[in-house]
Amino acid sequence: MNKIALTDAIKQFLYEDINYKDITTTAIFPEHIVGTATIQAKADGILSGVDILSTTFQLLDNDVQIELLKNDGDLLLKGDRIATIKGSIRAMLTGERVALNLLQKMSGIATLTATAVATLNNPNINVTDTRKTTPGLRMYEKYAITCGGGVNHRFSLSDMVMIKDNHIAFAGSITNAVTLVRKQLGPVIKIEVETETAEQVREAVANNVDIIMFDNRTPEEINELSRLVPETILTEASGGITIHDLHRYRHTNVDFISLGWLTHSVHALDISLIVEGE
Amino acid sequence: MNKIALTDAIKQFLYEDINYKDITTTAIFPEHIVGTATIQAKADGILSGVDILSTTFQLLDNDVQIELLKNDGDLLLKGDRIATIKGSIRAMLTGERVALNLLQKMSGIATLTATAVATLNNPNINVTDTRKTTPGLRMYEKYAITCGGGVNHRFSLSDMVMIKDNHIAFAGSITNAVTLVRKQLGPVIKIEVETETAEQVREAVANNVDIIMFDNRTPEEINELSRLVPETILTEASGGITIHDLHRYRHTNVDFISLGWLTHSVHALDISLIVEGE
Amino acid sequence: MNKIALTDAIKQFLYEDINYKDITTTAIFPEHIVGTATIQAKADGILSGVDILSTTFQLLDNDVQIELLKNDGDLLLKGDRIATIKGSIRAMLTGERVALNLLQKMSGIATLTATAVATLNNPNINVTDTRKTTPGLRMYEKYAITCGGGVNHRFSLSDMVMIKDNHIAFAGSITNAVTLVRKQLGPVIKIEVETETAEQVREAVANNVDIIMFDNRTPEEINELSRLVPETILTEASGGITIHDLHRYRHTNVDFISLGWLTHSVHALDISLIVEGE
Amino acid sequence: MNKIALTDAIKQFLYEDINYKDITTTAIFPEHIVGTATIQAKADGILSGVDILSTTFQLLDNDVQIELLKNDGDLLLKGDRIATIKGSIRAMLTGERVALNLLQKMSGIATLTATAVATLNNPNINVTDTRKTTPGLRMYEKYAITCGGGVNHRFSLSDMVMIKDNHIAFAGSITNAVTLVRKQLGPVIKIEVETETAEQVREAVANNVDIIMFDNRTPEEINELSRLVPETILTEASGGITIHDLHRYRHTNVDFISLGWLTHSVHALDISLIVEGE
Amino acid sequence: MNKIALTDAIKQFLYEDINYKDITTTAIFPEHIVGTATIQAKADGILSGVDILSTTFQLLDNDVQIELLKNDGDLLLKGDRIATIKGSIRAMLTGERVALNLLQKMSGIATLTATAVATLNNPNINVTDTRKTTPGLRMYEKYAITCGGGVNHRFSLSDMVMIKDNHIAFAGSITNAVTLVRKQLGPVIKIEVETETAEQVREAVANNVDIIMFDNRTPEEINELSRLVPETILTEASGGITIHDLHRYRHTNVDFISLGWLTHSVHALDISLIVEGE
Amino acid sequence: MNKIALTDAIKQFLYEDINYKDITTTAIFPEHIVGTATIQAKADGILSGVDILSTTFQLLDNDVQIELLKNDGDLLLKGDRIATIKGSIRAMLTGERVALNLLQKMSGIATLTATAVATLNNPNINVTDTRKTTPGLRMYEKYAITCGGGVNHRFSLSDMVMIKDNHIAFAGSITNAVTLVRKQLGPVIKIEVETETAEQVREAVANNVDIIMFDNRTPEEINELSRLVPETILTEASGGITIHDLHRYRHTNVDFISLGWLTHSVHALDISLIVEGE
Repeated sequence: MNKIALTDAIKQFLYEDINYKDITTTAIFPEHIVGTATIQAKADGILSGVDILSTTFQLLDNDVQIELLKNDGDLLLKGDRIATIKGSIRAMLTGERVALNLLQKMSGIATLTATAVATLNNPNINVTDTRKTTPGLRMYEKYAITCGGGVNHRFSLSDMVMIKDNHIAFAGSITNAVTLVRKQLGPVIKIEVETETAEQVREAVANNVDIIMFDNRTPEEINELSRLVPETILTEASGGITIHDLHRYRHTNVDFISLGWLTHSVHALDISLIVEGE
Repeated sequence: MNKIALTDAIKQFLYEDINYKDITTTAIFPEHIVGTATIQAKADGILSGVDILSTTFQLLDNDVQIELLKNDGDLLLKGDRIATIKGSIRAMLTGERVALNLLQKMSGIATLTATAVATLNNPNINVTDTRKTTPGLRMYEKYAITCGGGVNHRFSLSDMVMIKDNHIAFAGSITNAVTLVRKQLGPVIKIEVETETAEQVREAVANNVDIIMFDNRTPEEINELSRLVPETILTEASGGITIHDLHRYRHTNVDFISLGWLTHSVHALDISLIVEGE
Repeated sequence: MNKIALTDAIKQFLYEDINYKDITTTAIFPEHIVGTATIQAKADGILSGVDILSTTFQLLDNDVQIELLKNDGDLLLKGDRIATIKGSIRAMLTGERVALNLLQKMSGIATLTATAVATLNNPNINVTDTRKTTPGLRMYEKYAITCGGGVNHRFSLSDMVMIKDNHIAFAGSITNAVTLVRKQLGPVIKIEVETETAEQVREAVANNVDIIMFDNRTPEEINELSRLVPETILTEASGGITIHDLHRYRHTNVDFISLGWLTHSVHALDISLIVEGE
Repeated sequence: MNKIALTDAIKQFLYEDINYKDITTTAIFPEHIVGTATIQAKADGILSGVDILSTTFQLLDNDVQIELLKNDGDLLLKGDRIATIKGSIRAMLTGERVALNLLQKMSGIATLTATAVATLNNPNINVTDTRKTTPGLRMYEKYAITCGGGVNHRFSLSDMVMIKDNHIAFAGSITNAVTLVRKQLGPVIKIEVETETAEQVREAVANNVDIIMFDNRTPEEINELSRLVPETILTEASGGITIHDLHRYRHTNVDFISLGWLTHSVHALDISLIVEGE
Repeated sequence: MNKIALTDAIKQFLYEDINYKDITTTAIFPEHIVGTATIQAKADGILSGVDILSTTFQLLDNDVQIELLKNDGDLLLKGDRIATIKGSIRAMLTGERVALNLLQKMSGIATLTATAVATLNNPNINVTDTRKTTPGLRMYEKYAITCGGGVNHRFSLSDMVMIKDNHIAFAGSITNAVTLVRKQLGPVIKIEVETETAEQVREAVANNVDIIMFDNRTPEEINELSRLVPETILTEASGGITIHDLHRYRHTNVDFISLGWLTHSVHALDISLIVEGE
Repeated sequence: MNKIALTDAIKQFLYEDINYKDITTTAIFPEHIVGTATIQAKADGILSGVDILSTTFQLLDNDVQIELLKNDGDLLLKGDRIATIKGSIRAMLTGERVALNLLQKMSGIATLTATAVATLNNPNINVTDTRKTTPGLRMYEKYAITCGGGVNHRFSLSDMVMIKDNHIAFAGSITNAVTLVRKQLGPVIKIEVETETAEQVREAVANNVDIIMFDNRTPEEINELSRLVPETILTEASGGITIHDLHRYRHTNVDFISLGWLTHSVHALDISLIVEGE
């Protein structure tokens, strides 16, 4: 993650939560009171986002010290201590919710990704995210995907060409669409085409695109369609694949499967901050 | 929702998704091509966030027209048309993901809130959110809670005093904590105290606070504790109440129940944009 | 005050005053020249805003050291030394005006508030501010009010409900207005109603609002009206109370009196920075 | 005033005052309700800042129409109508405080400036402001000065060289200071030197600076010192001149007098918004 | 170009140039004066950036109308009229410099790119830019490259992997470096490796990277090295290729040549705004 | 240069180049790897912008140390070492392009300015810049001009009055234009008038403006026109003066010559960062 962007975002998030003052904590804790706190897992999962801790608390008090006991990507068991925080109690209590909200969400995504990877259980097929991320948090969520064992799909509409049904319909054909795109495109960007039928797959192959997506296809359809694709072209399964039928895609030979729910429907991993004493 | 803040946020979200250009759509669709699209529910739920649609698409093309067929708070059945969009196809395809990501999240929260309200099934007990919202999206998520039939808890650390266990421990007693807070506080802000025991409830009552929270208490404990609280003081149940045991709180007589999972663990409501033709 | 917000604001204020360079000071003082300066009161008053000093000068040179000799809320007599600054002379001369402009304004507000409190001379009646603050400086000015012995009224239109004459007129009655508001409101926000007549006060009481304001009433009228209000409802006097007739409100039994001129018509407290030598 | 900067600033000011929602007005007034309001002077003075009205209200609702009945610089008598506003009542009530806070402050400054000009009562001597403006509001306050009949001194530390006592002391002499500055300065920026003694004035003249300031001098001293200055060099009186002794400077022959209190110690001009009916 | 980003950037550029007011134009032209102006080429070249015109002038006055007579990518001959502007003279004169500074720079880049393309004179070899763009203007400059007939290399350090000498040295080998990168990379991003020797090229080929760059190689060396690369891998020539020896690369068979001077050493194309009369 | 503005700008430039991550460097270099790098001139020229180095690299890693071996304004010979950088290799490689892009551009401007000064070869005539700077980079480019031995013309439309042909035409005469401007102007801002004919020069002199510009005049015309101007008024030559005919202006007696190409048509000075070893 870009640390300059991260710091600016945490500032914005702290501002959203604090507004002009933590009126409870500042009334009760004098500024100079220091203490120790622990960040602890309250459920099993995969950790993601430990940089959030130092960034958040040090923005509130430069002298806060964070000792990390776990790293991003580590398995957490309920009760595991993730980090120790020493310093201003005010900073701890005022920053707690922002730090945990983000850490819990990222760890929730990492945990769900790890579950998807385990469910798929095929090291030749990557699990990837989509652009169905939370507005404003794409950098964090894409990073969490990698902590859970997934890899990233494109970050934005600028990174890669993805020719979808609406593009094909307007252009008249996959060939026309690819031709239009190639006229404007440099050599460093990949082109992916969404396909549903054998005819479309053959046309995409004929245009030598970089990636062919099988959109909303069953594992059986995918196996049939992927026979039409040479090794030099990557293949993606996407659309309508739930956590419950993901295992059915284990024996397809696509290169990667993208799953929107890794980011749009996530349960926060329960993590808490416990002040241990002043 | 503050429309000035909303517009600025959507700009930021569009920038995150578009980066410098939608390289696929701009290569294929000339700027002047117009058409019609429909926003459609693909699952049952409660709608929240229709203002996102006009804000997003009109930022991309000032001439896009949105006709709303449903309003925030409406029940959606799978297949229901939510809005019709007329105008630039480029704007529709380029803005689609940002608009849907936010609309789906907000509607997911509204739907979950409505489920919680129905599960609780007691018009005398309000369902409220917490500060466990997605960083950067608090305004949107708090608004979605109200679309689902909930009401809002405090927005930030500045809006209300919430005296928690750490504050009480450091101050020495609830009485001390309330006294410290009252020395700095104006008359327009409420004071809530987190309690676990009868003794704590009695002390909070003696201090005439505005709201008493029963933290992590069973319905039975709550019923016992709430007998200690006069009618002029509001009561809140909070902590560890899942969707599965929420019904058990139906017959408590608290004024409201706050539920973190209304915002931190939400499934996006499936909503799609369908280009109908150019 | 939220220190993250404060730092960002001081950056903006310094940018406004410096623009691209302090062309006089940088031409004359080499970057490495250090020295000592004193911040000194040139008139009697109450100090507010000492955090401005370290924030301003350290933004210009990280190594500047500030020793505070007075704290916020302290009484200043003409000639009192407020702080000693050691470090870069460039930083001192370039930051002087921004630091003093803000410190003088805040101390002016604190001083005026203290005068109001002393004039009122009744510990049972709080002096509060209003929303008539300088655009962009609300956090600073509300804080200065507390340094002078006042307490804060609401910070924004989101913090509290204030039902005014226009709201009542459109809703048809206080009862209608309160009912409309309560339908959308959570349990954590107070409701205040502006009243002018006994009938209105009775209606507000019947609706069990949190605060009743007596708008533009004489002390005599207030004493009559406040008899209609039970102890559980707070009362506010507001409107048209000048510094000259504030003492006449000493024997009303309102809970607080709000005064717009505490922030909208303030004389800067004269404070200067004196470079003591290099 | 730069209208792009003005719009961005008003957005920030509205955000400060509204935060996430005007919870009172939105609960009571449906979005479509329109009406008429009048902006009215409640005291005599000089108007400044009418552009604030359209900018503020149209940011909240694009369809609000403002008809100006008075212009910046006009004399206002108590009761004069300044503008008529037609459109969304929500926009009027929600934007009222921000618009009035700024309009009242600017008109207060214009009024005070006009008083100073009238007190001085010498068309050959300009009244100017200083850099003692409210942080964040310099553009507005400098503009208000011109509405009141004053002219602007420098806007920032970049616009003009002002050699003060600390600069002279470190450089060793006015001559040294001017020499150092001229080495780095282009031909388009004026140089002013602060002087207190005849010797200093003679040295400044010898260096052919553009402006000589007589710092904290009596009218009599100024008359003596200004005889040393040729016509091609402008002269400024500054420092310690109050509204009460300003008339004593009427018969000096300085070109301008700068007065910090025009901006740092201003009373808001009483102006109100009256909703006339829906 | 992303129009939301463009509008925000032009606002910033206008603020830089106008600061608080165009003091000359506002003193002389009343606000209501309208007229016509022409944007005209004063040298031959390729046009890029016509969207700058409407964005700049309409930010200053919403009613300004722009009629485009030339489009981006068009050849301009000295004297050609590019656009007609009708509306506020104030807006024209105040926005002139910002609009021209950007339009001239972009057209200068487009012109230089077209020269490079013509010099190379081989339709099978693309001309691309580099990351040696002006800080803050990458989107504009990359777009101008495409107007001149070039295509874009990567936009940022996130879009593509580029393994350079320092990376190879630390990893120990190209193979190690590619392996490290592939462990973290999704399937949608290309990998390019910088090579200088035949051995390096062979290692890059063995790792099946997407693009091989021949760094600082002569045309002869490139022809030799490129024989080692299969058709499925793209090749790039880069480093030390000046406008004077670019023609020598015409008969290499690389896929593209990247040229830093297309953006870092550009002459503005002379374009002027001529007010035709009011 | 204003260091607060500089830091904020470098943050923005780094964000433009890094986007969410330097995916190559972070995959290959662990975070803790430190090393040494040298900034080296690869061509002769004048250095400008060394503050860019520490600002850029320390934003990426606070512990990076920069030792400067050359200062702004120093002559660089090809091969000269400018600075040594010690610390995080990641920070060096990730920040390299932003730091060099800016340093090279600024040094290119300083070098071109020094060439212009040397070509003119008359210490009585200053070389100045114009407002034809790169949008967003005016502060940097104006500073670079001073490093090369030039001085700055006005920074913005607010700093100085410049009455051009369009202003004169609309006002009816130079006299009218000056009169209109003087009505609104304070005493601290200079007035310059653009002239082409003897008649115009005489009118400008009669109005006692501060600076008279000879627009697009030959050296011979300038010598004739400048005889009409008293010593107390400065003179400027501007318009159409190329690097090739600049020497012809050596024997004019103008006070300064402004040259747009110093900033709008600059070649980057070749400077590189060489990692010396880890």
